[in-house]
Amino acid sequence: MKFRRSERLIDMTNYLLEHPRELVPLTYFAEKYGSAKSSISEDLGIIKETFETRGVGILKTVPGAAGGVKFYVLVGKEEAVALIEELCNVFESPERLLPGGYLYLNDILGNPTIVRKVGRVIASAYAKSDIDAVMTVATKGISIAYAVAGFLNVPVVIVRRDPKVTEGSTVSINYVSGSTKRIQSMVLSKRSLSEGARVLIVDDFMKAGGTINGMIDLLQEFKASVAGIAVLVESEEIEERLVDNYISLVRLSNVNVREKTISVSEGNFFSRINF
Amino acid sequence: MKFRRSERLIDMTNYLLEHPRELVPLTYFAEKYGSAKSSISEDLGIIKETFETRGVGILKTVPGAAGGVKFYVLVGKEEAVALIEELCNVFESPERLLPGGYLYLNDILGNPTIVRKVGRVIASAYAKSDIDAVMTVATKGISIAYAVAGFLNVPVVIVRRDPKVTEGSTVSINYVSGSTKRIQSMVLSKRSLSEGARVLIVDDFMKAGGTINGMIDLLQEFKASVAGIAVLVESEEIEERLVDNYISLVRLSNVNVREKTISVSEGNFFSRINF
Repeated sequence: MKFRRSERLIDMTNYLLEHPRELVPLTYFAEKYGSAKSSISEDLGIIKETFETRGVGILKTVPGAAGGVKFYVLVGKEEAVALIEELCNVFESPERLLPGGYLYLNDILGNPTIVRKVGRVIASAYAKSDIDAVMTVATKGISIAYAVAGFLNVPVVIVRRDPKVTEGSTVSINYVSGSTKRIQSMVLSKRSLSEGARVLIVDDFMKAGGTINGMIDLLQEFKASVAGIAVLVESEEIEERLVDNYISLVRLSNVNVREKTISVSEGNFFSRINF
Repeated sequence: MKFRRSERLIDMTNYLLEHPRELVPLTYFAEKYGSAKSSISEDLGIIKETFETRGVGILKTVPGAAGGVKFYVLVGKEEAVALIEELCNVFESPERLLPGGYLYLNDILGNPTIVRKVGRVIASAYAKSDIDAVMTVATKGISIAYAVAGFLNVPVVIVRRDPKVTEGSTVSINYVSGSTKRIQSMVLSKRSLSEGARVLIVDDFMKAGGTINGMIDLLQEFKASVAGIAVLVESEEIEERLVDNYISLVRLSNVNVREKTISVSEGNFFSRINF
């Protein structure tokens, strides 16, 4: 079966979007469509240009016999600005305020369109980093972690507060919550991380950073390392931040639960990521 | 800025894939690319044909002034067969067996490529149903629930075992676990479901179905209804199944924890879904 260029472009676009950061040899497409490698090269040139112009991502060509193309998600600055503005507007509603200065985020974290955009923006920031897995802690960070991991094409590892039979044997650590100063524990299934893994930590909300610090400790138990830390929202009302090197999309400040007021502004994203 | 057909095809493919089950007016594309509606119609014809031939999904044209196109994910039978075979092979490994006849699934549920495929196949089965939300219970079903919800373009609602401050006020119910006969409870944030919502229940593992039954009870509390039930794995060693109308991709039987043996076969998917 022969394919016309238009059909190839559609099918290749779909294939590349579904296989980010995977090296696809030109011969794969050439055989799939019964086309000459030169035609495939031309197709990829058109896709590359359109992806870049439209802010879908970049297509990197790896030359040589073992070469091919790799698709990386990469959002443009406008897309990131638009998303962060959208998030700020949504978060600003005072009905979101919960006791303890937390925010009700379930609707945002359950909305696949927003979560996908958040995933694209965070994944963009790490698209070219060496990352073997995304780690988060159950439950609220899970949706964002999956969205990021999908764009980076790496597995998700979920830390829990308590062990469950379905986890198999686990490694457990204690850590001190940064804001309440209470001792808490977290567990990770032994089989879920391999030694030396480079791990991107993703979470929905960071106050002092105690939970994220706990995850960093847990990584040490697995002889794994931190490749990055990204949070959707950080709260600014913190005496002492336990975590340094992170990116945040949104920042909360002036949280006043009694008067139901809150200020929302962009996080440190644009000061950490160059466009 | 004018767009060539090839660029339009690439960008439209990306857009449609990112907006499943959303009515996109032809004028949206016509304005985006500065093209005549007749050209856009031709483009969509090519995309429609390629999506159908390559098993990406279907493109439905809604005629009239308020019309446009809608993309539905729809996998071909071969894709579903291939996925279910892959899952059977992966699950068969006796090292996955855990005490109580559970299976270690974290690696599968954490693998975005497999989860995406599972999501595509389950979403396909419900692509044309009226569904307003996907519901699952924390923690293990969450990845599949998000994948399904992404393809159906509806929010995810997560039931928990215990209330947390970040949920706001919650509705709690008690239910009897089908296999252990113990009384357990589950909670759902009050704000997370609206009255009358039609909900697709998704979970990773079903034994007798007590947990899923609990979710059905919870839906009644919210005056919401069950639009479908889909599980990745069902275990056959059940005296009395509490749930009837469900689809499963994989079925476990002959689970022998002491001798570490297990039989894995395809679930009821192909007897429930017509291709």
